[in-house]
Amino acid sequence: MPRMKVQGQHHRSIEADPSTRIVRFIDQTRLPHAFVLSEATHWTQIESAIRDMAVRGAPLIGVAAAFGLALAMTEDASDDQLNLVSQRLNATRPTAVNLAWALERMTSHLQPLLIENRQAAAWREAQAIADEDVAINEAIGRHTLPLIQAIAQKKDVVNILTHCNAGWPATVDWGTALSGIYQAQLANIRLHVWVDETRPRSQGLLTAWELREQGVPHTFIADNAGGHLMQHGQVDMVIVGADRVSLKGDVCNKIGTYLKALAAFDNGIPFYAAVPSPTIDRTLRDALGEIEIEERAGSEVRRIQGLDADGQLTSLQLLPEGSPVSNPGFDVTPARLVTGIITEKGVAAAGELARLFG
Amino acid sequence: MPRMKVQGQHHRSIEADPSTRIVRFIDQTRLPHAFVLSEATHWTQIESAIRDMAVRGAPLIGVAAAFGLALAMTEDASDDQLNLVSQRLNATRPTAVNLAWALERMTSHLQPLLIENRQAAAWREAQAIADEDVAINEAIGRHTLPLIQAIAQKKDVVNILTHCNAGWPATVDWGTALSGIYQAQLANIRLHVWVDETRPRSQGLLTAWELREQGVPHTFIADNAGGHLMQHGQVDMVIVGADRVSLKGDVCNKIGTYLKALAAFDNGIPFYAAVPSPTIDRTLRDALGEIEIEERAGSEVRRIQGLDADGQLTSLQLLPEGSPVSNPGFDVTPARLVTGIITEKGVAAAGELARLFG
Repeated sequence: MPRMKVQGQHHRSIEADPSTRIVRFIDQTRLPHAFVLSEATHWTQIESAIRDMAVRGAPLIGVAAAFGLALAMTEDASDDQLNLVSQRLNATRPTAVNLAWALERMTSHLQPLLIENRQAAAWREAQAIADEDVAINEAIGRHTLPLIQAIAQKKDVVNILTHCNAGWPATVDWGTALSGIYQAQLANIRLHVWVDETRPRSQGLLTAWELREQGVPHTFIADNAGGHLMQHGQVDMVIVGADRVSLKGDVCNKIGTYLKALAAFDNGIPFYAAVPSPTIDRTLRDALGEIEIEERAGSEVRRIQGLDADGQLTSLQLLPEGSPVSNPGFDVTPARLVTGIITEKGVAAAGELARLFG
Repeated sequence: MPRMKVQGQHHRSIEADPSTRIVRFIDQTRLPHAFVLSEATHWTQIESAIRDMAVRGAPLIGVAAAFGLALAMTEDASDDQLNLVSQRLNATRPTAVNLAWALERMTSHLQPLLIENRQAAAWREAQAIADEDVAINEAIGRHTLPLIQAIAQKKDVVNILTHCNAGWPATVDWGTALSGIYQAQLANIRLHVWVDETRPRSQGLLTAWELREQGVPHTFIADNAGGHLMQHGQVDMVIVGADRVSLKGDVCNKIGTYLKALAAFDNGIPFYAAVPSPTIDRTLRDALGEIEIEERAGSEVRRIQGLDADGQLTSLQLLPEGSPVSNPGFDVTPARLVTGIITEKGVAAAGELARLFG
């Protein structure tokens, strides 16, 4: 079931036109201030879009990479091209495992085929990955709903805190962390979402934007505020997405997630990660030691963009050049702080993820 | 000993000219982009400066209020004026106890005096409060130094994380949390400071600015990053300031402090609050329940200021009007997470503060 709407019209975050071989995606660097659809006709445009975060969110960058490989096969379906483009796309972002997962699935599907069959197969497989993402996220939402319903039986309004954007722009449709919130909205549960700003990229602006478009009550807060709200009983549960999760249930997600998990634990508030199976990395032993945490440009912290008095998207310098910046993009929340992992197969205690996916 | 310098010249954050009765203060809303001294010749200018955070930081707003009352006594030294102005200044900011403390000290000093003696006495007492603040902060730094030295014996470089600005602009001179860092610099200890941005007002920009001016190595980070750095052994201690501290050792400080205290505790990293005695509220029983947490304007989260391409200080809209904002200014870190309280009388375990100040 298609779900997400912008100004009343349904959109997926990314869509391929099967006749023209054009990939269209929402340029998320322009949100929430402008809704702009970009087109890619060459795989290097997908490469740039992932690297520059015009498409972002672990599930979406996996799907985008798959379409990128389909564009590459349209140009040249040789083994060399398959290997080169796969490596190049995989190098765009290091932390989310969905990227490597989608590229591995595409290459292992295409490699055995005759070269003349690869182009059509690549588009079919990329489309299948996109469609599966929608189905997975809808299922995650279905499994989230009873968790929200249980709280709704005790509270007039269910207050949910989320960090970063794990809504539909982070996926093809529905979102991961927000999927259950939309299911709860459909079930007429009264809820309210605390939206973390999520500096430095401020993906909370995307979350506020999509919740506004879907009519879900929400309040935007600085990243510093969540602990205080939890201390004062204003948060009933936390739901976040993930970029890479170990079978032990350690959750790598947007920087700052660990701090919110600590505060939830300290206040006895359930903390859930919504995790599609392509986000699970079965090879991980020690998530804290093994996952490469992307260090992004200091300019993301030093500068910020927004609308000026004329309504133009522009950027300002916050921090003078004389002070250095560090900008790690992700952190790892240990399984001991995670109440449950919500997957398309159901909810597992963090330590029992291997039971569903081992 | 005067300490802090801007472009090589010593400044206090606030100074009164005894001959002209003019109060000069650094306009902190213009930092770090411009160093501007403002003048107040009427107490209502001090009232605005505190409310609009041109002067901010618990110790400094106490001193500023004292000078505001001195300006008011110069105009009219009646009981009515004393009561009215004291109430008005006290209403500018609710959370830091230093404001009420300084006003109470001023009024109990002035009330018994003959009206004709109040003006001169008010200026003397305000100046005494300012001078005592400098001495207190220097003493806090002296008591912080051995804590840093102990780490320096085991590590080449001591990494200290701080939140908000508890440096010299938050006080008259030296700062509270940063005072010991400057003492360590004088003692030739190699150190490096992680500076939290501290959204929404981004007081970390002030901290980066003053550390740069004093030549202390530092790195600016988003508020979300500190937990990750602590997990990876990149933080040796945390030192923050405070706005109100109970005798039990519960620390009310800038929003987000609690999250960093949780992360420090989870990683076995010592967490200190640097607390001048005027910041201790002896009347508090339940800090979490009793302290009024200032809710500031949503525009502080919704908009941001910085330098545009022409080097002009300007502001941008980050979040569209359709999404509401909540903006609590402070949180309370429970004593159980606090390794020690550094005061001018020495360092106390959080639970033993009453021994020094009961």
